[in-house]
Amino acid sequence: MNITSRPVAVVFEKNCRRNIRNMAEKAASQKAAFRPHFKTHQSIEIGRWFRDEGVSGITVSTPEMAAYFAKDGWDDITIAFPFFPAQLPAIKKLQKSCSLRLFVNQPQIIHLLSENLENPVDILIEIDAGYNRSGVKLSHKNLIQSIISAANNSRLTNFYGFYSHNGDTYKVKGKQAVSRVIKRNLDAFTELKTLYPDAVCCLGDTPSCSLIPDLSPADELSPGNFIFYDLMQIEIGSCDFQDIGMLVEVPLAQKKPETDEYIIHGGAVHFSKDRLNNDKQTTFGQPVTVEEDHIKEIIGTSLTELSQEHGTIKGLEAFERHHSDGDRAWICPVHSCLTANLFDHYQTPDGKKISKRILS
Amino acid sequence: MNITSRPVAVVFEKNCRRNIRNMAEKAASQKAAFRPHFKTHQSIEIGRWFRDEGVSGITVSTPEMAAYFAKDGWDDITIAFPFFPAQLPAIKKLQKSCSLRLFVNQPQIIHLLSENLENPVDILIEIDAGYNRSGVKLSHKNLIQSIISAANNSRLTNFYGFYSHNGDTYKVKGKQAVSRVIKRNLDAFTELKTLYPDAVCCLGDTPSCSLIPDLSPADELSPGNFIFYDLMQIEIGSCDFQDIGMLVEVPLAQKKPETDEYIIHGGAVHFSKDRLNNDKQTTFGQPVTVEEDHIKEIIGTSLTELSQEHGTIKGLEAFERHHSDGDRAWICPVHSCLTANLFDHYQTPDGKKISKRILS
Repeated sequence: MNITSRPVAVVFEKNCRRNIRNMAEKAASQKAAFRPHFKTHQSIEIGRWFRDEGVSGITVSTPEMAAYFAKDGWDDITIAFPFFPAQLPAIKKLQKSCSLRLFVNQPQIIHLLSENLENPVDILIEIDAGYNRSGVKLSHKNLIQSIISAANNSRLTNFYGFYSHNGDTYKVKGKQAVSRVIKRNLDAFTELKTLYPDAVCCLGDTPSCSLIPDLSPADELSPGNFIFYDLMQIEIGSCDFQDIGMLVEVPLAQKKPETDEYIIHGGAVHFSKDRLNNDKQTTFGQPVTVEEDHIKEIIGTSLTELSQEHGTIKGLEAFERHHSDGDRAWICPVHSCLTANLFDHYQTPDGKKISKRILS
Repeated sequence: MNITSRPVAVVFEKNCRRNIRNMAEKAASQKAAFRPHFKTHQSIEIGRWFRDEGVSGITVSTPEMAAYFAKDGWDDITIAFPFFPAQLPAIKKLQKSCSLRLFVNQPQIIHLLSENLENPVDILIEIDAGYNRSGVKLSHKNLIQSIISAANNSRLTNFYGFYSHNGDTYKVKGKQAVSRVIKRNLDAFTELKTLYPDAVCCLGDTPSCSLIPDLSPADELSPGNFIFYDLMQIEIGSCDFQDIGMLVEVPLAQKKPETDEYIIHGGAVHFSKDRLNNDKQTTFGQPVTVEEDHIKEIIGTSLTELSQEHGTIKGLEAFERHHSDGDRAWICPVHSCLTANLFDHYQTPDGKKISKRILS
């Protein structure tokens, strides 16, 4: 491994491929389609690891992200964000190279699509089962019916099914709690299937897809974070350190024995400001040791402060006891999606570049 | 102004130029040199607005950022981060096109520089006057003296002076509180000047440089954030909405009258996760109106939730009352440095591109 002069996002291919395989098997065991979200890695090269496991349909956040992956031959893409009219030119262009599924939350949008598109599009209605972000409330049955009717009665729009994300699973810990939270969405699907038996029901949070053995009646799973996992997912219980697919390697900038700290070159522009609050302490990342693909927590250490370019590792003594290599640290980030977004490429542990999309 | 299909960072040149002029005048009134930090904007084009106000020396965070600005002819650059050995190759390369000032916190680093560089370099000792991040504690007089002796006795290293940043000024509100916090650093400079009368003393936080009339005995000011300012600086009292130099323009994705909310396309990958906690409420940004360069808060609204790509504006009614344009919102970010870092370019209000450096 080479010495770095700046923070680097290092991807562990073996761990990532194992995470992909496990999730593909999980979906298969549920008789659910596997349609992973690619917003986490945003890399054509890493996308191909999914193709190796038989994945053909993917999920993204924006038309621009869809266009990036369409260039590598992905031709069945769900844009998991409410469609809004200013996206129309980008959608029309995308339809030349791939089939799309769009989130529509109002019948007027169906008319707009129908009047302006040149190719058919599948429509998903996003169902808000209590997360209170975007989507149609489950109780708004008339609205749901009017969108479906509009889609079925309009040229080029085909009602496909329902999508329901529940970000509240990221705020609890353990299988039981996650199960309780995701039950809202599974119950919503059960109710919707009595009304619309042919509708395909999709969900995709990493905690549920990792932890909950039975996600029926979901027909499709589209998690994203699980490719890398992160400290937040370890806290939730979705994974362990040995499953981590991406770490940030940072140079040590200043040793401070008098305060038991190291200052690292690694700040909010490398990790993001997502944090975890445990036992009265805030952490922005966890120092770990790395041997080949084996990643282990360095107990007694934590990335406790972040400014723009500086980070503070608390626990210099513990750090030095487990870490013979005196010029850099490996940090498991709190939220890998936001961390990955801050790097213009990844590296393998032996320094080879893995290309990725730059910024959103 | 054009309709956007994705979040855009819009820069208001008139406001930025006024902020630069005011800060240049402030430095001049203190008989202090003005050596602004360019980490906030990271744009060669915006850097030229500083040159128009007579700026010739600048401050950056990394050798890579220095190289970016050196390409546009900046040849007097301070790298405001503790130098560490892995940076040596980048520093040697940089010295071919510009003169550098480096932060050195240990005498061993002086020896390393002296043995490896081919051109002279100015040395600044970073003084930790109580912020407890990087730097040498003011009380460590022997260490300070040993770095100065090493610099003076080694070839190519020239002791230039002291730098002392105090990020604690970002955590308080109002002139009196900021004055109390920055006094630590000004007192440190006074003490150091009795020992080293020729040393140049530099500081550079935006709250002090904006709010405190007398920053003597500082000889140089190097704030960065003031070019754009942001919601955090408004809260501190450093500026007002009319001084804001950058906003994020976002598409409205879903109207939710039943919860008095709008869902925007604009999330943590556009704003960062820096937040303010006021009156029991967390905010990630403030919706504003824009008329030419006049920016006004929309009272009763706030960006209260952020996930990766979604944001929630609370206060739909208030928003619609003050906002005739129904398809997008203007948001004043909490922390402009981190927000700017998340965009690959800026735009002017009429859609012209302003190039910038991509990522750190």
